Amino acid sequence: MNARLFSFAGGVHGEWVVCGQRAVVGEGLPAVERLSCVPADPSAGPVAWTLHGVVSNERYVERAEKAKLLAVQEGLGRPEARCAALIPIRKNAAWWALTQDERRAVFEAQSHHIEIGLRYLPAIARRLHHCRDFAEPQPFDFLTWFEFAPAHASAFDDLLGALRATPEWAFVDREVELRLSR
Amino acid sequence: MNARLFSFAGGVHGEWVVCGQRAVVGEGLPAVERLSCVPADPSAGPVAWTLHGVVSNERYVERAEKAKLLAVQEGLGRPEARCAALIPIRKNAAWWALTQDERRAVFEAQSHHIEIGLRYLPAIARRLHHCRDFAEPQPFDFLTWFEFAPAHASAFDDLLGALRATPEWAFVDREVELRLSR
Repeated sequence: MNARLFSFAGGVHGEWVVCGQRAVVGEGLPAVERLSCVPADPSAGPVAWTLHGVVSNERYVERAEKAKLLAVQEGLGRPEARCAALIPIRKNAAWWALTQDERRAVFEAQSHHIEIGLRYLPAIARRLHHCRDFAEPQPFDFLTWFEFAPAHASAFDDLLGALRATPEWAFVDREVELRLSR
Repeated sequence: MNARLFSFAGGVHGEWVVCGQRAVVGEGLPAVERLSCVPADPSAGPVAWTLHGVVSNERYVERAEKAKLLAVQEGLGRPEARCAALIPIRKNAAWWALTQDERRAVFEAQSHHIEIGLRYLPAIARRLHHCRDFAEPQPFDFLTWFEFAPAHASAFDDLLGALRATPEWAFVDREVELRLSR
């Protein structure tokens, strides 16, 4: 068992009702009605797809930024956070060929990824899962899971719009957006 | 198929003869006679263990360092490189809890990991494999594979000694060393 592994199964079963699903860049995913965030129960109904990712170490965040994030962020599972989003993303080969300093420069100096995220805390809670370095090739590099109260749904739209307008997003070659409610 | 995945099977079969095997830190691995660097052929003899890792993006190297490395490094598979070493390493939780800037500071500013490696190029060729972010938990975080000519075996010992004396190595909680020849 890997305590850092999380799985998202799309199908007809699960706590989360899919209220929107679209391809943002590249190929989409087969449409599903519900999403289950635990290993899917096969007896509960067919699963169209399952995405897996692991929570891992920080790749870009520096200590001063981490301190700011920790001071304001809230965890997943808040009772009022009845809205969620699952956003699987793949970045292109040009991104992965960059050195660490080059990726960090695009990520924060040019794109302000952390700074943008901070503006939406604590309303938008998030957990990032990595899936690029599995033994079996995966369809995405990252799965980001977001939770927020219905009152913050438009703030979440603003967050997505701000991130997608950054230079970092020029390296995204597949992105799917699932909007969910429970 | 994952083109970035490499596997090392220890047993009684394989191109590489194990001429030394020891635990450097923490638990060792069952002793083996030979190592195979491709998926093991089960009909060729029993396999004691198989370690898997993926080649991934740079985690610490910056562009100026990468340029220096690319200018002098040589690839694996040189005919004269009849010696090899496989060094699986696991780092402790304190390492993985550090932010990116903190890990980079230990890695290079304090430990000169890249600078030390550069001193031994092109004699010592190397490939780093990551295995911390697999779906299935792995016994190590990294597998490093080294190849060199017999004449450079003592230089390789010096390289290992220099790295193991660094502050970075205080975070290593398991390390095994296999020395090989073909």
